[in-house]
Amino acid sequence: MKRDDCVALDRSDPFKAHRGRFEIPEGMIYLDGNSLGVLPKGVAERVAETVAKEWGQSLITSWNAHGWFKMPLAVGDKIAALVGAPKSSVVAGDTISVNLFKLLAAALKMRPKRRVILSDTGNFPSDLYVAQGLRDLLGNGYQLRTVAPEDVAGAIDESVAVAMITEVDYRTARRHDMKALTALAHAKGAPIIWDLAHSAGALAIDLDGANADFAVGCTYKYLNGGPGAPAFLYVRPDLQDKALPGLTGWWGHARPFDFDPMLELAPGIVRMQCGTQPMLSMAALDAALDVWADVGMREVTKKAHALCSLFIELAEARCGKFGVKAAGPRNMAERGSHVSLHCPEGYAVMQALIANKVIGDFRAPDMIRFGFTPLYTSFADVWDAADVLARILETQSWNRPEFLARKAVT
Amino acid sequence: MKRDDCVALDRSDPFKAHRGRFEIPEGMIYLDGNSLGVLPKGVAERVAETVAKEWGQSLITSWNAHGWFKMPLAVGDKIAALVGAPKSSVVAGDTISVNLFKLLAAALKMRPKRRVILSDTGNFPSDLYVAQGLRDLLGNGYQLRTVAPEDVAGAIDESVAVAMITEVDYRTARRHDMKALTALAHAKGAPIIWDLAHSAGALAIDLDGANADFAVGCTYKYLNGGPGAPAFLYVRPDLQDKALPGLTGWWGHARPFDFDPMLELAPGIVRMQCGTQPMLSMAALDAALDVWADVGMREVTKKAHALCSLFIELAEARCGKFGVKAAGPRNMAERGSHVSLHCPEGYAVMQALIANKVIGDFRAPDMIRFGFTPLYTSFADVWDAADVLARILETQSWNRPEFLARKAVT
Repeated sequence: MKRDDCVALDRSDPFKAHRGRFEIPEGMIYLDGNSLGVLPKGVAERVAETVAKEWGQSLITSWNAHGWFKMPLAVGDKIAALVGAPKSSVVAGDTISVNLFKLLAAALKMRPKRRVILSDTGNFPSDLYVAQGLRDLLGNGYQLRTVAPEDVAGAIDESVAVAMITEVDYRTARRHDMKALTALAHAKGAPIIWDLAHSAGALAIDLDGANADFAVGCTYKYLNGGPGAPAFLYVRPDLQDKALPGLTGWWGHARPFDFDPMLELAPGIVRMQCGTQPMLSMAALDAALDVWADVGMREVTKKAHALCSLFIELAEARCGKFGVKAAGPRNMAERGSHVSLHCPEGYAVMQALIANKVIGDFRAPDMIRFGFTPLYTSFADVWDAADVLARILETQSWNRPEFLARKAVT
Repeated sequence: MKRDDCVALDRSDPFKAHRGRFEIPEGMIYLDGNSLGVLPKGVAERVAETVAKEWGQSLITSWNAHGWFKMPLAVGDKIAALVGAPKSSVVAGDTISVNLFKLLAAALKMRPKRRVILSDTGNFPSDLYVAQGLRDLLGNGYQLRTVAPEDVAGAIDESVAVAMITEVDYRTARRHDMKALTALAHAKGAPIIWDLAHSAGALAIDLDGANADFAVGCTYKYLNGGPGAPAFLYVRPDLQDKALPGLTGWWGHARPFDFDPMLELAPGIVRMQCGTQPMLSMAALDAALDVWADVGMREVTKKAHALCSLFIELAEARCGKFGVKAAGPRNMAERGSHVSLHCPEGYAVMQALIANKVIGDFRAPDMIRFGFTPLYTSFADVWDAADVLARILETQSWNRPEFLARKAVT
């Protein structure tokens, strides 16, 4: 594979026009869209209008006049279309952690005699913290049981009140089989919550086809909603009117403007809302989702895996001699859309990459991580990133004090 | 009192220069800053920079380079200065409802043998819903006991695990005595949570002097942080390292970037954080708080009460014959900074006021509500608002189908 071959692949890329819909900094190869997606064009204008006109001029009337109050549901419907969910089954708002808490609480109420929250060691730690916080809050024998990712299927038994599984591992990119695990959980009478943080916007997801009970997801990664953009939450339609989120506020009330002192949860997905949402961030997300209007998620998956395959091949071919080896499965059907490379001195190597305008991140203990975002990552980007990595390793240019010194936040 | 007297009061107003720091729509008398504060100047520019430069160009590095990760704490310190709290005792983020949940959970853990959450019927319903949601989640005999506002003092006994009190009633503006009630709660061994939604930015508050245990508050009302701006949360310093929020995520971990599967809560106020915060809304809030740099909260309180007194006097003098009567105490020391008027056909009257560019809101069953925001409401505004109200009632111009028809959200 030569760089020219990559350029040829870019010419036949079905998403070649989509790249122009994003503000990609000049000269930067941005492979961290799995952490913070780039700015879609049109978002800045939409946010400016929300600030100056809607807030600044229309003020309180914007809750009705500019659709603020219902935007979490409208945004939810846009996301639903990208994750294989029906209308009115997804709502945007709060954070993944908060939404996960609501769903865990609802799931535990559905299985009052069971005490185990099952998860795996490949889950994002914050999800495990949510479960630990809820466990400690409830006491009463609740426990979090975590097993290795490959052992989840065997660990689902009739003690499991709920399985809490992240589809794509934030480090290795290993992907769980949503349909199979959901069926296994149901066979043991356990509902399952899917965290789609590293899959929504990167892969075709079929929540409906998999019969998933619940899901949460992130919008600031592959959905490009902006830093800390509101998260989302899915509840299967037949469960919505039974779900008791535990964390309840006026946006989840059947008639919030009656100001009734008694809680009466709204029917449908609305009840999963809690407090007033941050509308500037919500408006940015709403606008960001417009880039997906004509995008087919199967094509996205196909390109995601083509980019990952190419990067693994190039990186291992040129950098294998320096101890570089891709983490996670080789079979693309079992992967998400990022690649982590085990790499000696990985922290410093990533700092050197960033200094060379190839942006990825580092995940302890030894992984350098690269996200491939099908709508704006090109095959030439992948070739160039592998090339810069190889040169850094060949010249040992990572071996400088400014790259070796760890920063608090990365 | 004539209009000229009001103009004279405006000339000697210590905040007359502050009004120019806000974008007040031309010709509008905006008396709904207790629901959504107006846009401070400079916020639009700050948000635009956060979108285009920080997100658009610096991307993931902005979490460090532009202080995103620590902004909830920096914003918290700005708010702390306005509510009588020490540094590092306030953090911004999430919503009031979510923050209240964390504090209720923490308070209940502090008093494991007690089962009663005490509140009052003047509390904002969403706060009561949070308590009801938590009660139902925990089961185990927990209960929410609500009494009339004037009966709270007498209802605090040794069954009370936590008192959850909103300082200023969102309808009547009745103000609880924070210092006295806190002392009463402590005498019975109960911690107390103060909701400052209708007081922060409107009144001098002394959380430290009152020895309050916990507080939450809103930033989109009198603090002008923007629609749905992140809320805030206070924990008294000596309680911080013991507080177990129940709702926990990676931003509350002692070392979030270690990605440790085991939850270890950070020391201090940091542990009360949960998930990744919406940075566009957070940046707007951060910029909005800059208008308070040289503001003394005692002066704010003084003007707040002068505006309220004037409005009650004018409204009752001119509209009393139409059945208009102010709700809440007459003694300003027992009030917040808004006035609700009992008013026959109040809903339609408020619609007619809005059509005449006097913006307030309606609260069932019969109250028209006006918020007075000392930094940008003038005495002439108050006079004009009362004048428009009187004319609407005198001419019965509220009696039109378009004003009588109720909208879903108001």
